Amino acid sequence: MRRIFDADLKQLGDDLAVMSGLVERAISRAGTALMTADLQLAESVIADDAAIDAINRELDERCILLLAQQQPVATDLRIIVSALRMSATLERMGDLARHIAQVARLRYPHEAIPHGLKGTFTKMHDAATDVAGRTTVLLHTHDLDAAKAIERDDDTLDDLHSDTFTAMLSSDWTGTPQETVDVTLAGRYYERFGDHGVSIARRVTYLVTGEFAEDLRGER
Amino acid sequence: MRRIFDADLKQLGDDLAVMSGLVERAISRAGTALMTADLQLAESVIADDAAIDAINRELDERCILLLAQQQPVATDLRIIVSALRMSATLERMGDLARHIAQVARLRYPHEAIPHGLKGTFTKMHDAATDVAGRTTVLLHTHDLDAAKAIERDDDTLDDLHSDTFTAMLSSDWTGTPQETVDVTLAGRYYERFGDHGVSIARRVTYLVTGEFAEDLRGER
Repeated sequence: MRRIFDADLKQLGDDLAVMSGLVERAISRAGTALMTADLQLAESVIADDAAIDAINRELDERCILLLAQQQPVATDLRIIVSALRMSATLERMGDLARHIAQVARLRYPHEAIPHGLKGTFTKMHDAATDVAGRTTVLLHTHDLDAAKAIERDDDTLDDLHSDTFTAMLSSDWTGTPQETVDVTLAGRYYERFGDHGVSIARRVTYLVTGEFAEDLRGER
Repeated sequence: MRRIFDADLKQLGDDLAVMSGLVERAISRAGTALMTADLQLAESVIADDAAIDAINRELDERCILLLAQQQPVATDLRIIVSALRMSATLERMGDLARHIAQVARLRYPHEAIPHGLKGTFTKMHDAATDVAGRTTVLLHTHDLDAAKAIERDDDTLDDLHSDTFTAMLSSDWTGTPQETVDVTLAGRYYERFGDHGVSIARRVTYLVTGEFAEDLRGER
């Protein structure tokens, strides 16, 4: 019985890692669609989000079944409750990738991000893809170095997000209102990837070490 | 034993309603701070968010304890898992109220919302306060009329959110880049209140009727 349950728990972890891999792919493709005004790519990201939502629902149902059938306590219980939460967080990261793809689609055939901010958004894209990549590794390996790296990526995203405001509010800003709206929304979406990554990093750290970081939520 | 457990479940529902009451108050005060550039009020909303976070953490721990000690199945189990999720949703609504208060604080002594959009934001404020008020009623009474009204409020918020884009992208728009950024962010925060309210409305509906609305998540 216990051996079956251990296999179930391992399966939960593997499924979260698979979900995270899909999120990583969505973020990467959404960013490319945004930076290159690629309508087809944007539409495929939007369509593919349904697969992430489906895994989320399936994973949630499995967690509830495990709670009902195995009646877990202590660490096992925390693993399952954490899986429920991390699955919701990954689902939300998928939504954010979809939102970025929607900005690209709405602005097509134009590019949403003005030339002067392309460097900043390229860096945000890299940091967000990094967050998702490290989250996949973290869920597979429980290697806490990946958790620490996610915290650093989040700081990078916060700094870059702040740079977008500095640019828009400087006297040099020549962006149209449409560009200002798009940069504000896309910047916000990118910044949230970092918060969600940190939330998962802290949950896994807690499962491994039994200690919660001060500011567990990290979802500002 | 069962009687104690029933009391525990009732307590969970009551605590969610208390949390929702605090969120309603935060949304109401944050909106007033935003519309009247009231720095002191904005700061009190920001400070009070810690109380919502504390109830969330306390409620989560209690859910985990109930899962461990009572080993619930079927409906009882779903009630507890739903409470975990609704608590997270309410916590997030508190964060959004804090974000609105932060916009007001950053812009003080100026008003963040330009004159021409005050009517739209007053309506968004009313609809969002409504969502939170109806959520409190729904959690107290499980009256599904409140759930339906929340869905309508969400539609209202979506329409008003769309109005803010129409205004900013019209040739009449004379807002500064700062105003464009603030309207974009505040509009997004208001729109999210509706999504979160719908998420809770659908969870309660499911607990009462056993049927999930098609698009449960509603968190776009």
